[in-house]
Amino acid sequence: MHVRVLGSAAGGGYPQWNCNHPNSARARAGDPAAPRRTQSSIAVSADGQDWILFNASPDLRQQITDNDILHPRTGLRDSPIKAVVLTNADVDHVAGLLNLRESQPLNVYGTQRVLSVLAANSIFNVLNPEFVKRLPLTLETPCAIARPDGSATGVTVTPFAVPGKVALWLEDQSAGENFGTVDEDTIALEVGTDAGARFFYLPACARMTEALAERIRGAALVFFDGTLWRDDEMVRDGVGVKTGRRMGHMSVSGDDGTIAALAGLDIRRKVFIHINTTNPILIADTPERRAVEEAGWEVSYDGMALEL
Amino acid sequence: MHVRVLGSAAGGGYPQWNCNHPNSARARAGDPAAPRRTQSSIAVSADGQDWILFNASPDLRQQITDNDILHPRTGLRDSPIKAVVLTNADVDHVAGLLNLRESQPLNVYGTQRVLSVLAANSIFNVLNPEFVKRLPLTLETPCAIARPDGSATGVTVTPFAVPGKVALWLEDQSAGENFGTVDEDTIALEVGTDAGARFFYLPACARMTEALAERIRGAALVFFDGTLWRDDEMVRDGVGVKTGRRMGHMSVSGDDGTIAALAGLDIRRKVFIHINTTNPILIADTPERRAVEEAGWEVSYDGMALEL
Repeated sequence: MHVRVLGSAAGGGYPQWNCNHPNSARARAGDPAAPRRTQSSIAVSADGQDWILFNASPDLRQQITDNDILHPRTGLRDSPIKAVVLTNADVDHVAGLLNLRESQPLNVYGTQRVLSVLAANSIFNVLNPEFVKRLPLTLETPCAIARPDGSATGVTVTPFAVPGKVALWLEDQSAGENFGTVDEDTIALEVGTDAGARFFYLPACARMTEALAERIRGAALVFFDGTLWRDDEMVRDGVGVKTGRRMGHMSVSGDDGTIAALAGLDIRRKVFIHINTTNPILIADTPERRAVEEAGWEVSYDGMALEL
Repeated sequence: MHVRVLGSAAGGGYPQWNCNHPNSARARAGDPAAPRRTQSSIAVSADGQDWILFNASPDLRQQITDNDILHPRTGLRDSPIKAVVLTNADVDHVAGLLNLRESQPLNVYGTQRVLSVLAANSIFNVLNPEFVKRLPLTLETPCAIARPDGSATGVTVTPFAVPGKVALWLEDQSAGENFGTVDEDTIALEVGTDAGARFFYLPACARMTEALAERIRGAALVFFDGTLWRDDEMVRDGVGVKTGRRMGHMSVSGDDGTIAALAGLDIRRKVFIHINTTNPILIADTPERRAVEEAGWEVSYDGMALEL
C-alpha cells in the first residue's frame, strides 16, 4: 500500500492567513526549519496508479499540483483520483470537494451525518451528481472502496467512532457541553488492502480510551491527531481563546497526552498529522520536536511518502 | 489606487486538476512560456495598506501566501484584508470565503441574490457572524466600501448588471434557455477612489451592448472577461461540450468578439482576466497572444501590479 501525505497542518494550514505567531512568521519568511504546510489530507493507493483521498482540504488544488501522482495521465480529461473518503464535515476536510469539478467521475464516501451536511449545502452540487456518487459509510462496517466504474480499488476502510466534537460550524449551542455531538461526528479509519497491509488514520481524537488503545495496538502505522503540544497553547500564546479539549483534540505532551497514551502499544510507525500553527513540533530545531522524535514519533510533512 | 491581480485564470485555474489539454500539460511541465495561474480575483487598495478583495477564489490561501501585501503586519492576529466584494455566486468566486476564518473582522459585500446563496449554504457560517458582516450591494448605487470598524477605505464600487448567466450550480433547468438568470446574477463593478482614480472590473460578460460600450468608453483601465479565444474552443479541443455562449462568456476573437467590441472605445489599458485553460492567449509564444497584444490588450498574470 502506498500513502502520500498531501497536507500535514491543522485547519487554516501553516502559516494561517491572519496569524503572526512566531511559528507562522518563520514559515512565511521561508525559514528552512519551518517549511509551509497545507491542510491535512492523505492519498492512499493499493496499486500505485489509482488514488483515494482521505478528506478534501481547501488546499486540494495546490496539493494536486504539488504531487505528480495525482496528475492526469491519458486522454484529455483524466484523474488518478477515483474516490474521496471523508472523516467528518470540518471545513478543512470537505471544502476541497469544490475543486473536483469538471464532470469527472468520482465516488465520495462519508457517514450519513457527513453526507447530510453535503446535501444541506447546495454548493456541493457543483460536483455533478450524474458523475459523482455519494456513498454511505457505516461505523464498524468494512467498506471496499470502489472506482466510479464499480471496480474495486483493493483498499478497504473500516470507520469507527473516536472521542471528538461536531465540526465548529455545526455546533448546536443549545445542546449542552457537547454541542450536539454524536458518534459519527468524529470517525477514524482502519485502512487495509487485499494483500494484508493495514494502518490507522486518526486526524482528530479528543482522548484515548481503553478500547481505542487495544484497537491500534501492534499496528504497522498510525497517523494521529497532532494538533497541539499542550492543551492551553493557543490561549497562552494569545492567538485564541479555546483549549484543545474545547476543540476536540488531545495534546501531544503531558501525562494524558498522545505520546504517553501510545507508548507501549507496540506500534511500528507513529506519525503526527493535523498539526496546528502554534505547535512547536512544526519546527525542526525545537526541543519539542526533539522530544517527539526521541519518543519514537515522526512529524509528517507535505509530500511525505510511506510504503506498507 | 493600487490593483494586484491575485488570480488570472477562469474557474478550475490553469492547469485544471483533471485536464490534459496541451495548454495544461505545458503549464504542468513548468514551461516558462506557460506560467501556472490561480482562479480569478483582484485586490484593490486606496492607500496601499488596507486591501479589498474582488471575489474570493478557491485558491485564496495560496494567493495570500504568494502576495506579501496580504500578510499580517502587527499583533498576533491581523490581516490587511478588510473587505470582500462578490460579483456573483460562482464557486470560483465565493469558495475562497471558507479560508477567511479564525474570527477575523471582515465585511463581505454582495447583491441580495449572492447573499441569499451564502445564507442558504450554512457552511459559510464558518465565517463567524459576530465578526463578519454581510452587506448588500444595490445595482447602480455607489457603495463606499468600509473597514469592519466602519471607517471608509476610500474605495467606492458601483455594481451594474451585464449580460450573463446564473452560476452553473444554481441553474434552473425548468426555467427555459436562460436557466432562471436574473439581472443580479452577473454584475460588473465600476471602482473609484476619493482621489478620482477609476476603473472597471468585468470578469464575466456574455455580450457587448451599446449601453455597456458607452459606460466604459474613455476609461483608464478595464479588466475584461478573457475566458475563451473562440466560442466553440472547448468543444473543438475535445475537453467540453459547452460553447462560450452557453457558459455566459463572449469570446476574445471574431467579429462579435471582445477585441472588436472594445476597439475605438478609447480605453487606456485593456486587460484580459478569467482566462480558461483552453485559451491560447495564456501562452506567451502563440499567434493568438501576439494578436491580442497587437490589438492593444494585456493578458493579466498572477501577481500583476497596476497603479492608477
